[in-house]
Amino acid sequence: MLRAIAPSNSLAERVTATLPRVAQVFESQLSSELAAVNELCRHVERYRGKMLRPMLVLAGGGVGGAPSCTTSHVVLAAVVEMIHMATLVHDDVLDEAEVRRGGRTLNSLRGNEAAVMLGDYLISNAFHLCASVGDSSLNQALGEVTNRLCQGELLQLSLRGETSLDEATYFDIIDRKTASLTGACCALGARLSGVESSTQQAMESFGRALGVAFQIQDDLLDLLGEERTVGKSVGRDLAKGKLTLPVVLHLRQASTESVARAMAAIRGADIKALGAEVRASGAAGRAAAQAEVQVRRAKEAIAVLPHDEARDLLISLADATINRSS
Amino acid sequence: MLRAIAPSNSLAERVTATLPRVAQVFESQLSSELAAVNELCRHVERYRGKMLRPMLVLAGGGVGGAPSCTTSHVVLAAVVEMIHMATLVHDDVLDEAEVRRGGRTLNSLRGNEAAVMLGDYLISNAFHLCASVGDSSLNQALGEVTNRLCQGELLQLSLRGETSLDEATYFDIIDRKTASLTGACCALGARLSGVESSTQQAMESFGRALGVAFQIQDDLLDLLGEERTVGKSVGRDLAKGKLTLPVVLHLRQASTESVARAMAAIRGADIKALGAEVRASGAAGRAAAQAEVQVRRAKEAIAVLPHDEARDLLISLADATINRSS
Repeated sequence: MLRAIAPSNSLAERVTATLPRVAQVFESQLSSELAAVNELCRHVERYRGKMLRPMLVLAGGGVGGAPSCTTSHVVLAAVVEMIHMATLVHDDVLDEAEVRRGGRTLNSLRGNEAAVMLGDYLISNAFHLCASVGDSSLNQALGEVTNRLCQGELLQLSLRGETSLDEATYFDIIDRKTASLTGACCALGARLSGVESSTQQAMESFGRALGVAFQIQDDLLDLLGEERTVGKSVGRDLAKGKLTLPVVLHLRQASTESVARAMAAIRGADIKALGAEVRASGAAGRAAAQAEVQVRRAKEAIAVLPHDEARDLLISLADATINRSS
Repeated sequence: MLRAIAPSNSLAERVTATLPRVAQVFESQLSSELAAVNELCRHVERYRGKMLRPMLVLAGGGVGGAPSCTTSHVVLAAVVEMIHMATLVHDDVLDEAEVRRGGRTLNSLRGNEAAVMLGDYLISNAFHLCASVGDSSLNQALGEVTNRLCQGELLQLSLRGETSLDEATYFDIIDRKTASLTGACCALGARLSGVESSTQQAMESFGRALGVAFQIQDDLLDLLGEERTVGKSVGRDLAKGKLTLPVVLHLRQASTESVARAMAAIRGADIKALGAEVRASGAAGRAAAQAEVQVRRAKEAIAVLPHDEARDLLISLADATINRSS
């Protein structure tokens, strides 16, 4: 992904070259003397995708020309990836999803029990690894993020099947469950490089807006994408009663007839019919436009920073969040 | 529980008097601006029982006459209780249990999804709260314990239905999933009081042996107890294919006929029949004797410590782990 975006950018190259070290720290942290544990972990390593969150840590660490990709950055990058993997494993249990990254999910292969426990093992290891940096305020910051993330999931769960969900609540949910982590990746990456607090705040705003854009794009892919292209189960939001932005916009703005057809599709969990209505009313396009607004907002947040290769890399990462089909 | 054991012990009284502060820190840590989150947390607070783990932290903190019940001890006590609650919530999902502390479990009332997510919220908050002490080595120690705990659960899961389970593996599982946390409660409580490392090690050994005894007693109650008395679903180990010590001992030592009847009871998940066989062969009694051996071992581990009220309190806590019916 990164190679395609910025082949000649030397920070981008350093970041790309560092990702295997991140993967190595990730794997060595999870490694156990128990074969049963290692086998499950190997399965999760197959989930690894674009490594967006580690890239945000490493890119964030390079802001203002600071030395990025230090050992602490690599450790933090592995930590955030581990938290992300834990949410994937537990989300798949919650969503009863069967496919991820083109392969069977852990819950579908080994049952919910192994998936619940392995998710716990990932969370536990993430905090253990984070503590190895030796800065308890980093653990506290990580804890704040994961608290917020869980609150977002719990809020979403409590609103399942709620067709009167409004835009503000939708944005509150995704800010908590997705954007809090991407925001922290950028801010903490920068903090490890010792940049001043206003820069950390700019990075936090950048990462949060990027996270919101990323989640809207994810929601669009779940509603309108094909499992083959997306590489994971689609239509899970509908099946699990989660109303996402395109549907929220449709239900508030489409014609009475189209809303009635969409409501019937929601009741019948008919993803094709719902997708067709949301596309035809323009709500899908309006949701995509909102993702673009967020990408613009992300870029504006770091416009104050010196124009250097870190900023360029962050901008290309922001653009890539919505220009993707998987 | 404590009041009945040692009414005139002044450290015991201080510990008892401190437990409401632990509960307060616990509740205030979990409190959220989201009503949906608070409602679920209130449900979990109903699970609170004997608060054995917080008591171990506070008692461990008083070893050698050190000032126990400081703010750090109270925080750590709330942290370990939160980890324990998380394991209860996720265990109930794994065990499909319906009753806990005489009431309905969260999973049975709100579904597995809410229970998975709330367990995550508890783990996340435990680490966040632990970081507030400002000592990253404490977070690292906690992470080591929870890694070990999850490994124990994963090992147990991988061996479900395995009727050839041997004693050594059984002890390895419960040392990880139960004794690692009780050992850490004692050792870290003592460490926060600044005692020397040999004392911390003695406390670790004490807490580990106590945890093993506790788990054997739990297993006996699950096999032979009544839901009304125990206050939680019984027979879950059998229903979930978990072989526990009394059954392991029975299958290795009972007569061929009795083993055959026990195997039939295991296949048919007939808890009454299995309990009767295990009781009649003496395996239940031998498991109870093993719990007593562990209590003795726990006491021996702290025999080297000065004879003071902390040691007396720890000894009475050890005795109480096996003299209980719930």
